[in-house]
Amino acid sequence: MLTHAYGFTSPTSPCQPLDIERRAPGPTDVLFDIAYCGICHSDIHTARSEWGPTRYPCVVGHEITGIVREVGTAVTKYHPGDRVGVGCMVNSCGDCSYCAQGLEQFCDKGIWTYNSQDRDGTWTQGGYSQAITVDERFVFRIPDVMPLDAAAPLLCAGVTTYSPLKRWVQPGMKVAVVGLGGLGHVGVQIAAALGAEVSVISHTLAKAADGRAFGAANYYATSEEGTFKALQGQFDVILSTVSSTADYTHYINSLTKTGVIINVGMPATPIDIYLRALSPRRTLQGSLIGGCAETQEMLDFCADKGVLPRIETVPASGITEAYDKVIHSQVRYRYVIDAATI
Amino acid sequence: MLTHAYGFTSPTSPCQPLDIERRAPGPTDVLFDIAYCGICHSDIHTARSEWGPTRYPCVVGHEITGIVREVGTAVTKYHPGDRVGVGCMVNSCGDCSYCAQGLEQFCDKGIWTYNSQDRDGTWTQGGYSQAITVDERFVFRIPDVMPLDAAAPLLCAGVTTYSPLKRWVQPGMKVAVVGLGGLGHVGVQIAAALGAEVSVISHTLAKAADGRAFGAANYYATSEEGTFKALQGQFDVILSTVSSTADYTHYINSLTKTGVIINVGMPATPIDIYLRALSPRRTLQGSLIGGCAETQEMLDFCADKGVLPRIETVPASGITEAYDKVIHSQVRYRYVIDAATI
Repeated sequence: MLTHAYGFTSPTSPCQPLDIERRAPGPTDVLFDIAYCGICHSDIHTARSEWGPTRYPCVVGHEITGIVREVGTAVTKYHPGDRVGVGCMVNSCGDCSYCAQGLEQFCDKGIWTYNSQDRDGTWTQGGYSQAITVDERFVFRIPDVMPLDAAAPLLCAGVTTYSPLKRWVQPGMKVAVVGLGGLGHVGVQIAAALGAEVSVISHTLAKAADGRAFGAANYYATSEEGTFKALQGQFDVILSTVSSTADYTHYINSLTKTGVIINVGMPATPIDIYLRALSPRRTLQGSLIGGCAETQEMLDFCADKGVLPRIETVPASGITEAYDKVIHSQVRYRYVIDAATI
Repeated sequence: MLTHAYGFTSPTSPCQPLDIERRAPGPTDVLFDIAYCGICHSDIHTARSEWGPTRYPCVVGHEITGIVREVGTAVTKYHPGDRVGVGCMVNSCGDCSYCAQGLEQFCDKGIWTYNSQDRDGTWTQGGYSQAITVDERFVFRIPDVMPLDAAAPLLCAGVTTYSPLKRWVQPGMKVAVVGLGGLGHVGVQIAAALGAEVSVISHTLAKAADGRAFGAANYYATSEEGTFKALQGQFDVILSTVSSTADYTHYINSLTKTGVIINVGMPATPIDIYLRALSPRRTLQGSLIGGCAETQEMLDFCADKGVLPRIETVPASGITEAYDKVIHSQVRYRYVIDAATI
């Protein structure tokens, strides 16, 4: 069925109204009316072909919430009227060793929510639209206590930070979150909810009051002299959410001897590190969103602990301006598109 | 008491006979007659002040085995005549969080076997000597089935490879060991004994037959075109034992999406890596020997599984020549000094 959307027709086009085709629900599909869709920096990279060539026209958006309109004949998990969400993926093979471990995000046949070729040969289109049809395995339940607008960013920013923090953080640990942006402001809340003593490491102290409000006990500015010297050997876990690689050796040296630094930013430049800095037993790990079960677990955890993104709602006509502000780090802390304006 | 040793008087001196003082056993000390001491590349770096200034005269050596001569009044674990060994450490505080976790090697007050200031203000002297006095916590039992000469390298090379492999390897995993030298040839045996399908990645195929004899199912040469392309995404665990950093990005790309690469080499130059290569969920970890309990566990494991270093025994007068061969990768696979020649 024809569905209104906002999308891109070339790397330099504005985000403009266009219509896309959504399939009628197959047996295991859920069709839902989109209420909100968060704006993630990945959307901008894809819209502008910055991560390789994008297939146009392209509708981005993978932080999607809404209300179920119709379900396929075999769907048992959801019913019309349910509050649901979709994140970065819409399908996977279901059979490989990654899928078997609940790590669908690593499936070689995984299908991303946008700019990915679907099983029927069409290209997936994301959440800057009025409705979407997704296999029920990749549809998550939004807990009743969560507003659909603020919940939207959890589908990407939430699980991106929850997955590594859940893997490594124990109560009482000292955890640093590098960068207080869309990812970082959720990461601080999650780390605090996991019982850590949380520090924010940011370029300046401009957002220090916000950081404390999100649950940080300490806030450090890398632009101040002596910061890294004072932080040497301090943290059990560091979650880096930034794309800058300049201070990586400093971050590694801020770990305890058995500390772990997880990178969820996407730096374009390589980092230069001395492997001896990782000795004694420091760990540098990548992380990429989370699996299906983990995504639902994250939503339930956030609902239980009161973790919620701080958002600003924008109309579809304001997407281009919002992109500019995201690029210039002026967003506090995530833009969410009101799909009623699409 | 005065004890014969071989040591260095300056960064450029040969390894020459000299006498050192060993303390009479205190209540918790074990004094043992050294039978053998392995030659580790770290000995060479320290002897020549390549890792910062060394305090001379310096006796190196931290792969030490021998027979107990005398024990302190409070020692219960050992008796005269027992077969024992000492590795890279001779003491730690015993109170800190690392010591409490059995990670004595990370204790801030840890005392290394040589070139380290002891509690009484003297400088520790290593195993190229006829006897040594060590606190019983840092003395390990050499299983009866193990010859004291071949067992010696396990005290450093054994635990250095065992600790990370034990931490990460599950039966059936694909494990690669980079470099088939003093560390690598033990690592291959341990990984195979842990039930992994082991591959060696070496510069050439020169040691391929040895690699298979140690338990490797596959042997790859990085000097052959197409090797890294064929290995993309193959390994669950890679243990790098080399000091070269040239191929690091290739190694990372040889991991599965959730693979782990552990570095136990000591490269002097930084590596240049794209953090995106670690995404999805790859892990780069340092590792440094092992704790006391783990060292004993390693010795017992190796005895049980028949893991044994392949060694060549040399007299003390041959240390300088042996160093040259270690530096030029001509050792097959570890030199062990016969302490009777000291």
